[in-house]
Formats: sequence, structure tokens, C-alpha cells
Amino acid sequence: MSEVAPAHTLAHPILTDDYATEWMGLRVLELGDGTATVTTTLRREMLNGFGIAHGGMLFAIADSAFALACNPHSPAEDHNTITVAAGVDVNFLAPAHEGEVITAVAARRAQAGRSGIYDVQVFSTPAGSAHSDETPGRLVAEFRGRSRTVPQR
Amino acid sequence: MSEVAPAHTLAHPILTDDYATEWMGLRVLELGDGTATVTTTLRREMLNGFGIAHGGMLFAIADSAFALACNPHSPAEDHNTITVAAGVDVNFLAPAHEGEVITAVAARRAQAGRSGIYDVQVFSTPAGSAHSDETPGRLVAEFRGRSRTVPQR
Amino acid sequence: MSEVAPAHTLAHPILTDDYATEWMGLRVLELGDGTATVTTTLRREMLNGFGIAHGGMLFAIADSAFALACNPHSPAEDHNTITVAAGVDVNFLAPAHEGEVITAVAARRAQAGRSGIYDVQVFSTPAGSAHSDETPGRLVAEFRGRSRTVPQR
Amino acid sequence: MSEVAPAHTLAHPILTDDYATEWMGLRVLELGDGTATVTTTLRREMLNGFGIAHGGMLFAIADSAFALACNPHSPAEDHNTITVAAGVDVNFLAPAHEGEVITAVAARRAQAGRSGIYDVQVFSTPAGSAHSDETPGRLVAEFRGRSRTVPQR
Repeated sequence: MSEVAPAHTLAHPILTDDYATEWMGLRVLELGDGTATVTTTLRREMLNGFGIAHGGMLFAIADSAFALACNPHSPAEDHNTITVAAGVDVNFLAPAHEGEVITAVAARRAQAGRSGIYDVQVFSTPAGSAHSDETPGRLVAEFRGRSRTVPQR
Repeated sequence: MSEVAPAHTLAHPILTDDYATEWMGLRVLELGDGTATVTTTLRREMLNGFGIAHGGMLFAIADSAFALACNPHSPAEDHNTITVAAGVDVNFLAPAHEGEVITAVAARRAQAGRSGIYDVQVFSTPAGSAHSDETPGRLVAEFRGRSRTVPQR
Repeated sequence: MSEVAPAHTLAHPILTDDYATEWMGLRVLELGDGTATVTTTLRREMLNGFGIAHGGMLFAIADSAFALACNPHSPAEDHNTITVAAGVDVNFLAPAHEGEVITAVAARRAQAGRSGIYDVQVFSTPAGSAHSDETPGRLVAEFRGRSRTVPQR
Repeated sequence: MSEVAPAHTLAHPILTDDYATEWMGLRVLELGDGTATVTTTLRREMLNGFGIAHGGMLFAIADSAFALACNPHSPAEDHNTITVAAGVDVNFLAPAHEGEVITAVAARRAQAGRSGIYDVQVFSTPAGSAHSDETPGRLVAEFRGRSRTVPQR
């Protein structure tokens, strides 16, 4: 409702008109060379019939972090190519609950020509506890993305 | 807009209070022993910054089909256990566009003790063309889910 | 010991000087458009410390079937490219034992540009029983290979 | 030929009667809590028809490191369970050549109940250069193993 984007929300070219990321309410906490951290709060529309986070929603949060990490965010960088997800292997380790804060931390692990491997760790923590903790919560999913850099259309 | 659930939408116990599946507008076209087919229309909130389906949304549609296929849908079946997703390997093969009809077809491929493997094929087709075609459209993703059956809480 | 290659062992260009496949004693039972079936007997050097087939050896048998399925075997086909394994997701479902006959059945599942997906099912059966059965034995592994076609060096 | 096991080769209970690991000539360089490093030299029988390391052989080396990392190596630890590979996702990043030294470095990444995730990085380096380098060579494969702890038979 009164979810105000804090001062540290960062801009990235691929977020313009990214309606899914907007719907998820993702805020960008960090952007670097092959890295990105995003966060959001788990809403009711992100839950499955077991009353926990729908795997697809945890995946979508991680996938957005992956896309931010593997595309250039600075105007000085190459804009003749885009990098897309060719595939992902994901393991779900623990449930996440309504109202919890989800944080996805993406980092490039390897690059071979136009193919890359990015690991995204997805954490969950009860609302309000995130900022007082050293870590972004308990690990709920491990996501390994395979990227492919292709010419810009 | 006037998206009315057609007569062939099927019921399944895990869909009660599945808010994510409801938000995605999924309709259940088929349910069998280890199988399920679901369909929906790709809305703007399911698109990423490249103007195509967000990988997480295609994943979520497939993941719902996977959950329906691996949990019993008949009252006569076992209700002391639930089957959850332990992990998934997904390959994204082609983009899908706003307004297209997405269909996810899930089928059990193997079962070893309490672990199962389910394949879900995700198809996309321009709106209005689905019912006149023999196939549910062009293949946009191949999803392989790993299930784990655990005691009901 | 007296393992004589039977009349139905087939030739394939990539098997010339394939020392690993030779070491494994693989025989090629079938070759088609995107398909291949290979078989061998599980020897002592293919076992791990638990007395069952080493996962790497089951993987290697499947990987050879995958390579045969995704490279042309007829002189009439394209020889300016080769197709290599970019990655694999494999699930181990049941143990296999010394002396058993392992059969790997590979088939192309999808192709998108230069990227392909091939499924390889690995079966095991006690020695001597293979030819009298309708199926090649019990399923011990499900292997999904990701191929990439690249220019011939 | 004159490959003498150096003083730092370590013992591990699961290596007794592990004929595949013995055939590969693996030496154990490091063992810790959830970690293991193994090394061997790429022999001709480990090559495929393209004259490079057979994917199955690189996988087998990584798989042995994975097994060492996820099973207890000290007599003081639990011996009522064993931990096996339920599945693996592997990406092949670069070729490795005959005579090169392969090193596989395994480390536990996550544990949830009886399920674990282990990452194994596989490096290759020309013979003789390994000991003078800071790193174990160039990265040729990224292996992510899914473990499952089960009662000892």
C-alpha cells in the first residue's frame, strides 16, 4: 500500500517497461559488474495452494536479478547486444511465507565466449528483520542461470 | 476482459486458495494419472523489459501444471502426503508475446520411491488460433521438474 | 572376455579414434535422424566404492549416445559443423550392478537455431536377459543434454 | 607410467574398492567438512572422437570429488548413513586435452534436511604447470550435484 521505493533503489535500462518486475514490486539494491541484488515483499498473489510462495514467483524474482546482472547498466557499456536466459537449474530448499521479505543475490560465476553462468541465491526473512541482520535471511532457493549474449534486434 | 472460465475448466484440491494460479488466470484443461494441461493468456504484467514473456512467468505457468500433475486430484486417492517441487531444469527456446495463449502440458516421466521426474512442455500461439490447431502452438520452453513426496503437515 | 561385436554394430564418423567409447566397449545398436542407441556391459572399472555403477560411467555411456544422436552419421549430411555438449542435467534413479547390460537410448526433443535438447534414457538389465525382453531393462538414469552446433575447426 | 602417488594423497573410506576412481588414477589432495579436491592426468582412454576430453570422463572426475565431499572421511563421524548423488547439472565451458592435469574442487553449498547441493569446479592445465600456478588452471566445467543422505544398507 504505502510501499515507497527507498533512496537506494537503482535504475537499469532493462527495467523500463518491465511490467513483470514492476508487478512484483522489485527494488534494486545493488548493481555491479556481473552482479545484482533485488528485494520485494511476498504478497498473497505470489502464494500457491499450500499457503507458501509459489515456486514460479521465487523463480521470477531470481530471474529478474539474473537479467540485471548479465546486461550492462551503464551508458558507457556495449549496447549492440542483449543477454538472455537460455536456461536455468533451480533447487527449492525451504518454504517462504506471506509478508516475508525476499532477497535475490545474483553473481556471474563463469563466462565462455557468449555463454555465461550466473548463480542467484534467494533468501527469505520475516518482515522488519532484514535490516538488523548480517545476512539477508535463510536460504530458500539456489538458482543457476545459463546466459546467452545475442545481437540486439 | 470478459474472460469467462469455459465449461471444461477442471477442479483440483490444491487450487483452492492458490492465489498465484488465480492471478495468472490459469484454466485446467486436462487432469489424469500424473498428467495435467493448463492454459492462460499472456498479459502485460507477465512481460519483461524486452517486451516478451518474463521467464519467471512461463516458469510459473509450467510449475502450476507440474503441481497439478503430481498431486492427487480425486478424493479416492491418498491424502496423507503432498508432493512438492524439489527442483527444476528449464530451457527457454523461443520468445512469447503479449496476448498469446500459453499452454503447459505436464506428464510424469519417471518415479523412483518418493522422487519423481515430470516433463512440462510450454507452447505459445497467437490468440484465437489455439482451438483450430492440432498442436497447442510453437514450443517456447522445456521444463523438467523433480518432485518429492512428503508427509502432509 | 569373448565380447565379440555383433553384426548389428553400426559405424559413425565420430567413433573413429574415440578412445573413451572404445574403452567402455560401446556397441551402436541404432542410428537415425536425431536418435542413437548404444549398449555395453558394466565392468569392474565402472564401479564406485559402494559396489554399484559409478555415476560418471553411466553418464559417459549416455553422453556417447547423445553425441552420436546429434552429429550426422551419413556422408550426405553437413560436415562443416560439429555439435557438442554445452551441458547436461541428469537424474540417477536406481543403482546398476557389475555384469549388467547398460543400454542408452537418445532422441532429439527440441531444436531452436543452433541449440538442441536431447533426452537419453539409461536402462540396466541382468546379463542375458536383454534380448528376451520387450524393454531394455529398468530405468536407472534420465539424462537431458543441451547441444550446441559450432563451425568445424 | 612412473606416476607415483605423492605423500599428500589422502585416504577416504569410500575409496576402498572404488575401481572407477582407481582406473581414473585420481589422487586426493584435500578433504574437509563438505569439501574435497582430486586430481589426475588426462589419458588417451579419456578422449572422445574430437580428440578432447570425453564429457563423461570430466563428469566422472567431478563426481568422485562430489562423493568424497559429501561422505564422512573421519572414523569419528556418522557411519549409519551414506550420501549418494540424486542428480547433477553440469556445464561444459572449454575443452581439455590429452596429458593435461585435471583438478576437481568440490564444496558444499547448501544443506536442507537430507538433501544437499555441492558445487564442483573442474580445471585443466598443461602437465608440469600445476604446481607453479596459484590457480589449478583454466575452468573447463561447472558441476552442481544434488545429494541425498540415506540409511546405510
